[in-house]
Amino acid sequence: KKYKICVIEGDGVGKEVIPETVRVLKNLGDFQFIKEYAGYECFKKYGDAIPSKTVETAKECDAILFGAVTTPKPHELEGKVYRSPILTLRRELDLYANIRPISNFRDIDFVIIRENTEGLYVGREYYNPCTEEAVAERVISKKGCYRVVKFAFEYALKHHRKKVTCVHKANVLRVTDGLFLKIFYQVSEEYKEYNIEVNDYLVDTTAMYIVKNPKIFDVIVTTNLFGDILSDEASGLIGGLGLAPSANIGDRYGLFEPVHGSAPDIAGKGIANPLATILSGAMMLYYLGMKKESKILRMAVKSVVEKGYTTPDLGGNLKTREVTDKVIEEVKKY
Amino acid sequence: KKYKICVIEGDGVGKEVIPETVRVLKNLGDFQFIKEYAGYECFKKYGDAIPSKTVETAKECDAILFGAVTTPKPHELEGKVYRSPILTLRRELDLYANIRPISNFRDIDFVIIRENTEGLYVGREYYNPCTEEAVAERVISKKGCYRVVKFAFEYALKHHRKKVTCVHKANVLRVTDGLFLKIFYQVSEEYKEYNIEVNDYLVDTTAMYIVKNPKIFDVIVTTNLFGDILSDEASGLIGGLGLAPSANIGDRYGLFEPVHGSAPDIAGKGIANPLATILSGAMMLYYLGMKKESKILRMAVKSVVEKGYTTPDLGGNLKTREVTDKVIEEVKKY
Ligand SMILES: CC(C)[C@H](C(=O)O)[C@@H](O)C(=O)O
Ligand SMILES: CC(C)[C@H](C(=O)O)[C@@H](O)C(=O)O
Repeated sequence: KKYKICVIEGDGVGKEVIPETVRVLKNLGDFQFIKEYAGYECFKKYGDAIPSKTVETAKECDAILFGAVTTPKPHELEGKVYRSPILTLRRELDLYANIRPISNFRDIDFVIIRENTEGLYVGREYYNPCTEEAVAERVISKKGCYRVVKFAFEYALKHHRKKVTCVHKANVLRVTDGLFLKIFYQVSEEYKEYNIEVNDYLVDTTAMYIVKNPKIFDVIVTTNLFGDILSDEASGLIGGLGLAPSANIGDRYGLFEPVHGSAPDIAGKGIANPLATILSGAMMLYYLGMKKESKILRMAVKSVVEKGYTTPDLGGNLKTREVTDKVIEEVKKY
Repeated sequence: KKYKICVIEGDGVGKEVIPETVRVLKNLGDFQFIKEYAGYECFKKYGDAIPSKTVETAKECDAILFGAVTTPKPHELEGKVYRSPILTLRRELDLYANIRPISNFRDIDFVIIRENTEGLYVGREYYNPCTEEAVAERVISKKGCYRVVKFAFEYALKHHRKKVTCVHKANVLRVTDGLFLKIFYQVSEEYKEYNIEVNDYLVDTTAMYIVKNPKIFDVIVTTNLFGDILSDEASGLIGGLGLAPSANIGDRYGLFEPVHGSAPDIAGKGIANPLATILSGAMMLYYLGMKKESKILRMAVKSVVEKGYTTPDLGGNLKTREVTDKVIEEVKKY
């Protein structure tokens, strides 16, 4: 089957790492790549950071490959409304599970599964000028908890993971995170026969253990903003965001993106690290059912990292293109 | 002047590290220690985790020394309401700034100043059975932002710190954290003449940099829950919570506590590390105006750590009492 891939480069280094990843993928299968626009440049050109055509194409494709976009500062907007492309896509495509593997291909290897549609990301925020108070609503639904926790256990089963840890702040957020925690243990009952270890930690404790003792983690499942913070923290363990891919998965669609942003400071210099995006491509292959190819690509990246064929952020001295060439070389060995 | 100190041991190791800290303090000044009760044991005995007498005494004293309390699991409560002692004290005494120095006495040395009364800690949470949605309100007030940011700049001035960093998630929480960020830069204008560097980072980026490059931080000011998470993360850098003291300060009162909890797993064995509480005692001395004594105590802890006179959590093999004895020995040298 020839898969249709919606490709959204976005801004900054997104325009460098996505074409490189496409170049790699062409060596692993027969794809039709359909390019669409989103981001700040798109906003400046078309007045919309995520045109409806982009969302439509995304829905018609088998998967979406997303680069990175620049979020403008409020004063750059001149009063216009800027819809975040990635948040819009997560919501409109109902991509409720955000998978963030943390691995340096050596001693660190765990996965953070982050609820991706609710919590503090629902956009229910207002300012009361009388009390001079701003309020944001953190919304946690029963359905939202259930499906992401279920996803985490299914993920653990499929990937032969041995433990699922629920991360929360139920000692303070007794109602919202209390619900998340309750449903976590309820769902864990459905997986009893598989002998997956289950436990839970407070988010603050987790933040400490990720630094002190990351080996205690295998699969972490958590709410939206906690997952955002903890996955960036965890990427610090593996030298930064250079090796941090992610998948945004729903019941119908899948979107794959590096965790890093558009990095305007290094954009255009040809030195952006393409590996996080290439690894996101490997996650996409797995999602499409191309498990063998996914594994080959992951192994290729592993070799390249081990041999030190990397950009400066990972201690090497190669350019973006050269790293990609090395990955393709490795892919061809299989 | 003979200062009156309200002493609340709490549960678990709280009952070990507080008496040890009191023992140290007696070598540094003339205090009247008034013991009050709070925590889970107190709850089981008196039906209230924080009796009003405790709050009253706290208000009558010059400072409060607080150990740690155990939060019971919901099923242990048999339907009774459990008020968190520390959250109650922070609120009732309006202790709006939580200062958490992160230092290993060597290369790492920064301070997290956390807003301590609002954000997701306001207790405005409810469950809607019709929609099966739980909602928590994150409240950020203009006044709350102003006073904690002001506190951070005053702290920087007093302690000769060179940079203040605002940590937020204003790209998603545009209204609440947008307000915090705006007020941060407004207040920074009032301190222009002092040449304190100011900047801001997203909370996820900060979580990464604390692991990758903590030296870029000097004073961090942030909202309540972000401060909770980031300070525990940062303590991972200095070997865990064993050296993490904290001060909760308002316009009228000051409460000093280790960041760690009641650690029921090691309680009663005489192996709890007293240094975080002793360092909290040093912060209390500073607050009371006993700057020289505060410095002596800090230097004493530094020596003890450097000489390896520590409990097992910091790599040593001493007991709680023995560590305290070593600290007192050092104090006596001055
Ligand atoms: C850009 C931002 C809205 C986004 C988020 O907070 O989810 C990013 O930090 C991420 O982790 O994908
Ligand atoms: C015990 C808990 C309510 C508290 C908090 O979340 O503030 C603790 O984690 C802390 O950091 O002091």
